[in-house]
Amino acid sequence: MQKEQLIECHLRITPYIHRTPVLSSRLINELMGAEVFFKCENFQRGGAYKMRGATNAILQLSKEERSKGVVTHSSGNFAQAVSLGAQSLGVAAHIVMPSSAPEVKKMGVKQYEGIIYECEPTLEARQAMADRIANETGATFLHPSNDPEVIIGQGTAAMELLDDHADLNAVFCPVGGGGLIAGSALAALYFGNDCKVYGGEPFEADDAYRSLQSGKIESNETTNTIADGLKTTLGANNFPIIKEHVTAIIRVTEEEIVSTMRLIWERMKIIVEPSSAVALAALLRNKENFKGQKVGIVISGGNVDLGDLPF
Amino acid sequence: MQKEQLIECHLRITPYIHRTPVLSSRLINELMGAEVFFKCENFQRGGAYKMRGATNAILQLSKEERSKGVVTHSSGNFAQAVSLGAQSLGVAAHIVMPSSAPEVKKMGVKQYEGIIYECEPTLEARQAMADRIANETGATFLHPSNDPEVIIGQGTAAMELLDDHADLNAVFCPVGGGGLIAGSALAALYFGNDCKVYGGEPFEADDAYRSLQSGKIESNETTNTIADGLKTTLGANNFPIIKEHVTAIIRVTEEEIVSTMRLIWERMKIIVEPSSAVALAALLRNKENFKGQKVGIVISGGNVDLGDLPF
Repeated sequence: MQKEQLIECHLRITPYIHRTPVLSSRLINELMGAEVFFKCENFQRGGAYKMRGATNAILQLSKEERSKGVVTHSSGNFAQAVSLGAQSLGVAAHIVMPSSAPEVKKMGVKQYEGIIYECEPTLEARQAMADRIANETGATFLHPSNDPEVIIGQGTAAMELLDDHADLNAVFCPVGGGGLIAGSALAALYFGNDCKVYGGEPFEADDAYRSLQSGKIESNETTNTIADGLKTTLGANNFPIIKEHVTAIIRVTEEEIVSTMRLIWERMKIIVEPSSAVALAALLRNKENFKGQKVGIVISGGNVDLGDLPF
Repeated sequence: MQKEQLIECHLRITPYIHRTPVLSSRLINELMGAEVFFKCENFQRGGAYKMRGATNAILQLSKEERSKGVVTHSSGNFAQAVSLGAQSLGVAAHIVMPSSAPEVKKMGVKQYEGIIYECEPTLEARQAMADRIANETGATFLHPSNDPEVIIGQGTAAMELLDDHADLNAVFCPVGGGGLIAGSALAALYFGNDCKVYGGEPFEADDAYRSLQSGKIESNETTNTIADGLKTTLGANNFPIIKEHVTAIIRVTEEEIVSTMRLIWERMKIIVEPSSAVALAALLRNKENFKGQKVGIVISGGNVDLGDLPF
């Protein structure tokens, strides 16, 4: 994927997304011994960076494709993002959600007029139902993290961050399905000045860490992590980008995720979801290696159930 | 108080405060039928606008006065603000806190090197101990809301908001001791274009509402409100300003405060304290009167105990 694709993508989606602010905190800078810049995608439309990739993918469809709608399966932010992006563009959004998905996530989809289809909570059942809907309606399937247009769209967050702070030494992202970190790695490659990209991942769902070790895509047997956005595994399109352009994946414990999430809430007065805290937790665990540096953190989203907090 | 005093104050405190961002939300705009601009003093140093007035008051002291320190009594944000402002300027801060003050508030003062003195949880005991410390140490007493330098300092938040959005039709603030709304009323008078100022106040601590009705400062018999920053009563210096320049005080219920606080957390992904929600709740209750208008909301602070949330 080329630099021009990122630039064109950013122009294409700009009318539909927020240019999110970059915030910092003196206290967190002191704690890290580094200058830390938070790209606040929790303030993005739909509450997460996912809106970028979803909107780009829908905008790349032909008029005829758009008239038949889009379909995805997701229990989380991508479902909301596709619903909101499709609504903005007058496109029907068919959303397959596992029956176990939290009510708050279903409400999010419904408020953006997404059409929900419930299925058994297995990846096979989700894919099967999405395939069936695609067959019956002609809707285009959008993958949350492995679609090239989605990957490029997600990269525009780090692209904007580097536009605001061109001299970052490093950017940290959380790693789930790999779309955000692959897009960010491309953004750093094309718009950074020797800017390294690191991923944060829970020990409890460390498929990306193990995949980089083994050189092939590994899966998770269990995913007992509070970072519900990071339970998915890497894809065939984003893994090669990650392998080539990501410096390291740093794993963090559940305790580190919760305490870092609380640190961000208390110090920055912003609401971030557990997945977002994973990126800062990864920096905190390795802060000795970043002393005096300028580090960007992509705050991936802020969609949490306020009635079910870990503190 | 004159326009020049506000301008000079703003220049004086600028090196010590953040220029806080102004945020907005499409969903909240739709809900209100108005364009709403949130001045995010929850992102201010110390987590609240109080840093403005405290810093201004300390900066106005002579070198000799500063060498003897400052003293205040507060169970909340002003205690933290005086500690942090004094620390930044190398001044000793003596903070009288009621023994009933939450541990999280005491921790806030300690981290900024404020010296805590505990007393009985009555206004008389607090004032008596502050007087004793002033006598013994020569420290200057700073009142959280009635000191003219504090009032002017607090007004700089609305001044910045009007600098960013000169055409606001109205500004809403929460009303506790009256320092913020008096300062905001002066800012609107000097920097607004026929910009009206409204106060939000809990029914459970509606002394400002009743004071405007009766024409003299009324007190609260009880203050059973979750908006812990709004339990105090108006002062002799801020009341005349409020009487002359504030259009109305709008009262809200405890249920409205909590549901509006949740609305802000969920929709804007920012952490605001209950007192801040009071201002938006007051607009929400009267939204028919502000249809199509541009309305500023001063988000006063974001210091909440995450272990003790109302939802």
